[in-house]
Amino acid sequence: MIQQYMSAMGVQDDHYQNGDFAVHTPIDGSVIGHVSLHSTDDVKTAVDNAKTAFHTWRTVPAPKRGELIRILGEVLREYKDELGALVSIEAGKIKEEGLGEVQEMIDICDFAVGLSRQLYGLTIASERLGHHMRETWHPLGVIGVISAFNFPVAVWSWNTALAIVCGNPVIWKPSEKTPLTAIACQALFEKALEKFGDAPAHLSQVILGKTEVGNALVENKDVALISATGSTRMGRAVGPKVAERFGKCLLELGGNNAMILTPSADLDLALRGILFSAVGTAGQRCTTLRRLFVHESVKDDILPRVKAAYETVTIGHPLEGNLVGPLIDKDSFDAMQTALSNAKDSGGSVTGGARVLVDKYPDAYYVKPAIVELDEQNDVARNETFAPILYVMTYTDFDDALAMQNDVPQGLSSCIFTNDIREAEVFLSDRGSDCGIANVNIGTSGAEIGGAFGGEKETGGGRESGSDAWKNYMRRQTNTINYSKELPLAQGINFG
Amino acid sequence: MIQQYMSAMGVQDDHYQNGDFAVHTPIDGSVIGHVSLHSTDDVKTAVDNAKTAFHTWRTVPAPKRGELIRILGEVLREYKDELGALVSIEAGKIKEEGLGEVQEMIDICDFAVGLSRQLYGLTIASERLGHHMRETWHPLGVIGVISAFNFPVAVWSWNTALAIVCGNPVIWKPSEKTPLTAIACQALFEKALEKFGDAPAHLSQVILGKTEVGNALVENKDVALISATGSTRMGRAVGPKVAERFGKCLLELGGNNAMILTPSADLDLALRGILFSAVGTAGQRCTTLRRLFVHESVKDDILPRVKAAYETVTIGHPLEGNLVGPLIDKDSFDAMQTALSNAKDSGGSVTGGARVLVDKYPDAYYVKPAIVELDEQNDVARNETFAPILYVMTYTDFDDALAMQNDVPQGLSSCIFTNDIREAEVFLSDRGSDCGIANVNIGTSGAEIGGAFGGEKETGGGRESGSDAWKNYMRRQTNTINYSKELPLAQGINFG
Amino acid sequence: MIQQYMSAMGVQDDHYQNGDFAVHTPIDGSVIGHVSLHSTDDVKTAVDNAKTAFHTWRTVPAPKRGELIRILGEVLREYKDELGALVSIEAGKIKEEGLGEVQEMIDICDFAVGLSRQLYGLTIASERLGHHMRETWHPLGVIGVISAFNFPVAVWSWNTALAIVCGNPVIWKPSEKTPLTAIACQALFEKALEKFGDAPAHLSQVILGKTEVGNALVENKDVALISATGSTRMGRAVGPKVAERFGKCLLELGGNNAMILTPSADLDLALRGILFSAVGTAGQRCTTLRRLFVHESVKDDILPRVKAAYETVTIGHPLEGNLVGPLIDKDSFDAMQTALSNAKDSGGSVTGGARVLVDKYPDAYYVKPAIVELDEQNDVARNETFAPILYVMTYTDFDDALAMQNDVPQGLSSCIFTNDIREAEVFLSDRGSDCGIANVNIGTSGAEIGGAFGGEKETGGGRESGSDAWKNYMRRQTNTINYSKELPLAQGINFG
Amino acid sequence: MIQQYMSAMGVQDDHYQNGDFAVHTPIDGSVIGHVSLHSTDDVKTAVDNAKTAFHTWRTVPAPKRGELIRILGEVLREYKDELGALVSIEAGKIKEEGLGEVQEMIDICDFAVGLSRQLYGLTIASERLGHHMRETWHPLGVIGVISAFNFPVAVWSWNTALAIVCGNPVIWKPSEKTPLTAIACQALFEKALEKFGDAPAHLSQVILGKTEVGNALVENKDVALISATGSTRMGRAVGPKVAERFGKCLLELGGNNAMILTPSADLDLALRGILFSAVGTAGQRCTTLRRLFVHESVKDDILPRVKAAYETVTIGHPLEGNLVGPLIDKDSFDAMQTALSNAKDSGGSVTGGARVLVDKYPDAYYVKPAIVELDEQNDVARNETFAPILYVMTYTDFDDALAMQNDVPQGLSSCIFTNDIREAEVFLSDRGSDCGIANVNIGTSGAEIGGAFGGEKETGGGRESGSDAWKNYMRRQTNTINYSKELPLAQGINFG
Repeated sequence: MIQQYMSAMGVQDDHYQNGDFAVHTPIDGSVIGHVSLHSTDDVKTAVDNAKTAFHTWRTVPAPKRGELIRILGEVLREYKDELGALVSIEAGKIKEEGLGEVQEMIDICDFAVGLSRQLYGLTIASERLGHHMRETWHPLGVIGVISAFNFPVAVWSWNTALAIVCGNPVIWKPSEKTPLTAIACQALFEKALEKFGDAPAHLSQVILGKTEVGNALVENKDVALISATGSTRMGRAVGPKVAERFGKCLLELGGNNAMILTPSADLDLALRGILFSAVGTAGQRCTTLRRLFVHESVKDDILPRVKAAYETVTIGHPLEGNLVGPLIDKDSFDAMQTALSNAKDSGGSVTGGARVLVDKYPDAYYVKPAIVELDEQNDVARNETFAPILYVMTYTDFDDALAMQNDVPQGLSSCIFTNDIREAEVFLSDRGSDCGIANVNIGTSGAEIGGAFGGEKETGGGRESGSDAWKNYMRRQTNTINYSKELPLAQGINFG
Repeated sequence: MIQQYMSAMGVQDDHYQNGDFAVHTPIDGSVIGHVSLHSTDDVKTAVDNAKTAFHTWRTVPAPKRGELIRILGEVLREYKDELGALVSIEAGKIKEEGLGEVQEMIDICDFAVGLSRQLYGLTIASERLGHHMRETWHPLGVIGVISAFNFPVAVWSWNTALAIVCGNPVIWKPSEKTPLTAIACQALFEKALEKFGDAPAHLSQVILGKTEVGNALVENKDVALISATGSTRMGRAVGPKVAERFGKCLLELGGNNAMILTPSADLDLALRGILFSAVGTAGQRCTTLRRLFVHESVKDDILPRVKAAYETVTIGHPLEGNLVGPLIDKDSFDAMQTALSNAKDSGGSVTGGARVLVDKYPDAYYVKPAIVELDEQNDVARNETFAPILYVMTYTDFDDALAMQNDVPQGLSSCIFTNDIREAEVFLSDRGSDCGIANVNIGTSGAEIGGAFGGEKETGGGRESGSDAWKNYMRRQTNTINYSKELPLAQGINFG
Repeated sequence: MIQQYMSAMGVQDDHYQNGDFAVHTPIDGSVIGHVSLHSTDDVKTAVDNAKTAFHTWRTVPAPKRGELIRILGEVLREYKDELGALVSIEAGKIKEEGLGEVQEMIDICDFAVGLSRQLYGLTIASERLGHHMRETWHPLGVIGVISAFNFPVAVWSWNTALAIVCGNPVIWKPSEKTPLTAIACQALFEKALEKFGDAPAHLSQVILGKTEVGNALVENKDVALISATGSTRMGRAVGPKVAERFGKCLLELGGNNAMILTPSADLDLALRGILFSAVGTAGQRCTTLRRLFVHESVKDDILPRVKAAYETVTIGHPLEGNLVGPLIDKDSFDAMQTALSNAKDSGGSVTGGARVLVDKYPDAYYVKPAIVELDEQNDVARNETFAPILYVMTYTDFDDALAMQNDVPQGLSSCIFTNDIREAEVFLSDRGSDCGIANVNIGTSGAEIGGAFGGEKETGGGRESGSDAWKNYMRRQTNTINYSKELPLAQGINFG
Repeated sequence: MIQQYMSAMGVQDDHYQNGDFAVHTPIDGSVIGHVSLHSTDDVKTAVDNAKTAFHTWRTVPAPKRGELIRILGEVLREYKDELGALVSIEAGKIKEEGLGEVQEMIDICDFAVGLSRQLYGLTIASERLGHHMRETWHPLGVIGVISAFNFPVAVWSWNTALAIVCGNPVIWKPSEKTPLTAIACQALFEKALEKFGDAPAHLSQVILGKTEVGNALVENKDVALISATGSTRMGRAVGPKVAERFGKCLLELGGNNAMILTPSADLDLALRGILFSAVGTAGQRCTTLRRLFVHESVKDDILPRVKAAYETVTIGHPLEGNLVGPLIDKDSFDAMQTALSNAKDSGGSVTGGARVLVDKYPDAYYVKPAIVELDEQNDVARNETFAPILYVMTYTDFDDALAMQNDVPQGLSSCIFTNDIREAEVFLSDRGSDCGIANVNIGTSGAEIGGAFGGEKETGGGRESGSDAWKNYMRRQTNTINYSKELPLAQGINFG
């Protein structure tokens, strides 16, 4: 199934066909490859090698480092179809989304190339005669990237494009559910390296494995930054470990993203926004819309239309023109069913959610996206279930809607649909949404790479991608240079 | 001894004379006050109150919040002498440094007032027609400040001036060794509040206590940011606790600051730089110069001059015109003696270090600053002892000096004395000093508030004061506003 | 009338009582002072003196320069009432606006103090090994400020607070209609200098005179920047002269500011917005609302309310609780009458506009603010008449309203009243208002000092006050420092 | 001679072979093409067309605009050799420099692509409750580019890459001496457009002609920005014309660039620096080194080495491995001879400067680069002669050297060679070089595109290329959005 793509991208058969660890496609549950997992010793070796690479790479001028990423962007353009298809096969995303994910990789490369002639620090006015202050940003060290199955390639590229331009080598531990896309990315990176010419070995390395392999990365004191995407549970384990060894962390954890749908909203737009945000990627985006607060005056208008739209959504093989592909695995399906059952127990009214295509794909898990109507927000809704469940609640007062939107432990994405500028700006204000992302008249998912991506509270506080997220991959240094022949002290202190 | 200052600043007697906990001055070990320590329940109450204050204060326009800090700056100017003297008495600093510390408080207020009309976010070019992207910074929440005895008031002001302007209430747990200066600061803050007029209660609160009280603050999930200054040991305990509850941390921990003294250096300047950095504040600054790498060609010239200068340094009562005051307490003295003993055992040659003025001050600990000559850097030197010990080592090759400078677990401050621009710029470059502060021709201590203050590695990675350190006290939000009548998806995705 | 204020501010009688040039108050036309005008030779002397001051002041560290401006802010706080009253008397503004203008001076001082520890340049990633790039901002030179009668003191302070902090001396030529407020400002500046201590002579100088004196400043090649506020006609003369000698210009010229009032607008707010923007300062603000485009569906609702409000506006002595004071002089009154007459001739329907209080003030010019209803925008409306005339036009289609709003030669301020986020954001977008200022749900006048103030097209393109307007007062320098032992060329050129 | 390159780049023969205006190569003076010059009417048509293009292009999202420039960069990579060779043939540059110029075009494209997802404005803290301030940058309008023969293609690309990304169409009037490279650039731009797809017509247009055609562009009120590179004389004519119509100007005019060579300099580096800066491009760069201030103690060491190096420089056909090609034309040669003659008359001692290869190239002007030793700086040296003349003067005191370096009307580029950090930093400080570019240990020429390029005084004050030079191509708008239900006024004014 994937051999054509892999060989086109330059991955040799033995890299994914001869290992001990079987890789399944969520499309039908079949095995699509066998890879070898790494040991914790391998992690140590990788870190040591990366450290060596760091000492060379950090001194390469940043615009030259940018040239490598520019070439990587070109390579990704060339293999967009192949890599996109592989993403679909290994992660179960529909084709459009697989391609969209690769486009995001391309976009971040363009952005990082531009940064490579910036990486701006500051010159600062000094209070002392004959002194000059400045702040510079230097390469940080080895970057460890831990990614999740649902964005099997984009998250790596967000981190890698910036990390490389900022002067750092990267070690990537992908989800054990999606090792093949990681292998393919590494192959494409090597194509870029080849065109680029002289670069140190081990700039980019992939480490395959499960939790203990991830932990070996997390606990290695030579890994300067751990950029980890995954569940809040994972982040709660990773954060303290890194903090204890005074490493840096960039956490992208769970989201429980909501929309407030107001009386003045353009309902046609809102319908599209709900649909893409709630059922896109089969509800398996960190930014998937999970909670809908609809004004009581609009509910009877919009909810039937949402339900009707849900009915028309085609479910099936992600490369065959459907809008919804499979869940990643049985665990995911089980968690969804549990959540729906709990929701029902809590008084919720459930539409959809059943498994479909069982006969065709007995070993895969396709579901109808579910809608759960709740009288009021409860702990079932406050919990993130990584599946296409949309909890629908009504509100009367705008401030109540805001309070409910914020009343969850997570703080990733949020949106409002309104044509009322006051509601919109309050939503975006200090007393509005407490999320890292807050949108108006677009859904919770589908961020551009130009903005900083990430969230607050149990989402972990990290920011990737645009704005000044690149500073995560550098260390800041404050310099004062005295070029006078005196030694005045700050704050006018007179000593001796 | 302190009553005149306290009453001038508006502190009533019963705030520092009737408690259970005795406060000693390091000047002669005598008791200068009795305060009441808070309980962990008090901490909870304080946090709850601060949370309430937050909901009001965050919506006050930032320039109005700045006005409070402007007034605070005026109040500090008015009481500079009194507060400076109190710092000398409670922390043992010489008068010039006590005043310098208050000046630093004044400077940060000026800086924060300017920020209050900035707090700049970004508007960002969007890839989608009819869309507008922006990034805004919103108030963060309750800020917990944990400070150390050696900068008993400045660290609070760095955090508070920024935190208040950024829309947040502050809870301060000062060192249990310096509660009185904290009480005085709170009194001055209240003077400012009175002139300011309408502000919510509990914008600034002081919590007195030991570790368990600090822990109660650290572990309270409603404290959005813990800004903690102190030892690496403390940071290693605090960091993971805050990480586990997904709070934010700003750590300012140990330093083991070095100077590289090169052949081309202006030795007169260097001598002054060494003296102030190494013996100022009796060696009890986080940025105190602790290690000196002197080029072999210069050693015989500079070292005798340093020793001679050490001899002339006057030691004694900090308010009586001396340059070196007492150590903070007996523990500190014992740690110094242990380090010197270990240094001797490791082959080091020790000059100075003995206790002086024992008869005059039997209950206080005045020492001659010590110089330890080492053949090569060892673990004694790699460890931070919070006392006036200067380890002196020679070097031949500049790259070796750089490597030795970086070969410690801490990463706060560093400097080079050189007239050679190549050495200077290499020192400041990606392959130079790995510290957060790197200076040329000024010592390791005495930062201006305009730069970001803090360090790497076991120093904890936090940044306070100038540059964009204010962002620590805010949360970032990325907004996309769709004002078109279409709903295009990012990355050109076509869904449905 | 003014003696009490002048002497309180430290202006000696002979500074404004013994000159040849009579100064009139627009309140009743009476003479309130006699000043001596300067000659063009005096201008030359002033510039030479300022140049000398520059060579000292530019090397004073910026935070110390900021301290002078901080003190100036304190002095302004102290004399706010006196200076505000003097503004009312000399320029005819009502008391609230006189005080508001002084408040603006205070605000810019606070802002500039903060800047004095920033004045940020950049450090930039270099493409060459062992090279370091940076961009720094240096003091510019002598700054010439030409201001208009309507903001007799604020405009000076906008320029001076920034210029001084940026390291430059200032020479101010105020309007010949308002020399006394200038003399008072200079006296307050000198009070600040006295508290500040050591500063070079001639940091701030006032030059009184008419056009030829202004021209002498404009044409002097040692004046690095001419910051001129006034009519488009003046700017058209000044700009080319400065360009010819390669000086820099900051022009703040005419405005013809409009409001679009949409069907969804909050009409109560809009009414207030119209009233303050159109009749405040008797229509003599650069940002005064001069054109109102009201949606046809709202016109019959709002226009009668505006007219009714106009009727209630009290007109009279500006210090006696009225909302509208006098026009500045007879020329101004005549120009207004001509415009109204032309408007009538062009088919417009005029309400108000007549002179009032003739008996009480035979030598002063109080008018009823005028409303002119036009069928469509014509050249009368396209021309800026510096008086309280509001042209009212209707629109049907939003894009037409936008086009009409932009169809004037000036480009200063604009606003929309709407609750519709789409209209608001289109108004603020690339295809929206072409003005330098564009507001939503507030009027055209009354900017905060935190934003950059100024406009496009015949408004002259200059920006003062907030954001990075300070860069006008500095010169930019791009530095590359080679600290390697090689000499690589940019763009990879190999030479020889 | 050029047909192979032209056709490779897609230029059809009739575009450069059938016109009335003969184009000569400076290599041998022969005719290499015939082009048609445009009329002033053509300029009007071009501006009208560009205006139409503007209304479409400005609304295309910036990242999409960036995609066009990314493709342009790819096209330039593909045709680097051809375009580089054409530059050599038409402008007489040696091959390395022709290629270097194209590389600069490529670099600016990369940089501009990154910008296309930034174009950052600010969000700003407002003093009013329920208000939100921001500053956005919008497309400016039609951009007119006037370029000189010596950088026949790079200057266009600097302007065009930024202008297009910023949303503006460009009209280019190249030097009449180099129309063919302009035609080629336009052809490459069209190749990029073709790959890009849907863009409005007339985004980029080339206008060929002499002064009157340039003037038609300069005087057209629909050209929002004139970016003009050339002589100070030209700038003195252009500036006032644009100022009079309230257009914007970006002037890059004459330079008279100097090096200070200090006693501590690395003379090997300095020798290389002098050679490339003084004789590169046959002394016809705006940044060519024209004045050398050498410390008296070093003169006898370095000057003979410079002279010896000048002897070894190969002069001849620029595509045949020489280091120095021809002057652009006879006027240029004559001006050089006049300058040398004047220099001699003023007491200078001249080495080199004679015409060579007369027999081989009777219609071309190859010269030996000249060195003129002067006792002190005089008006001959203060004048910019666009030819390879290096005036050498000695100094004793560093401050004198600084003063002499600054004592010219121009202010483009400058450098110091020193290993002394104090000299270096003083040179870069407020009292150092008054130029827009100031380098340490690299020559005056050869800037990277990441920094802002341009100079002060008679150099015209413009900045192109890196840093925030893109703001030249946009208009700034300050927005305040009131989302409250109140209408508070700024500065706390209470009206009515």
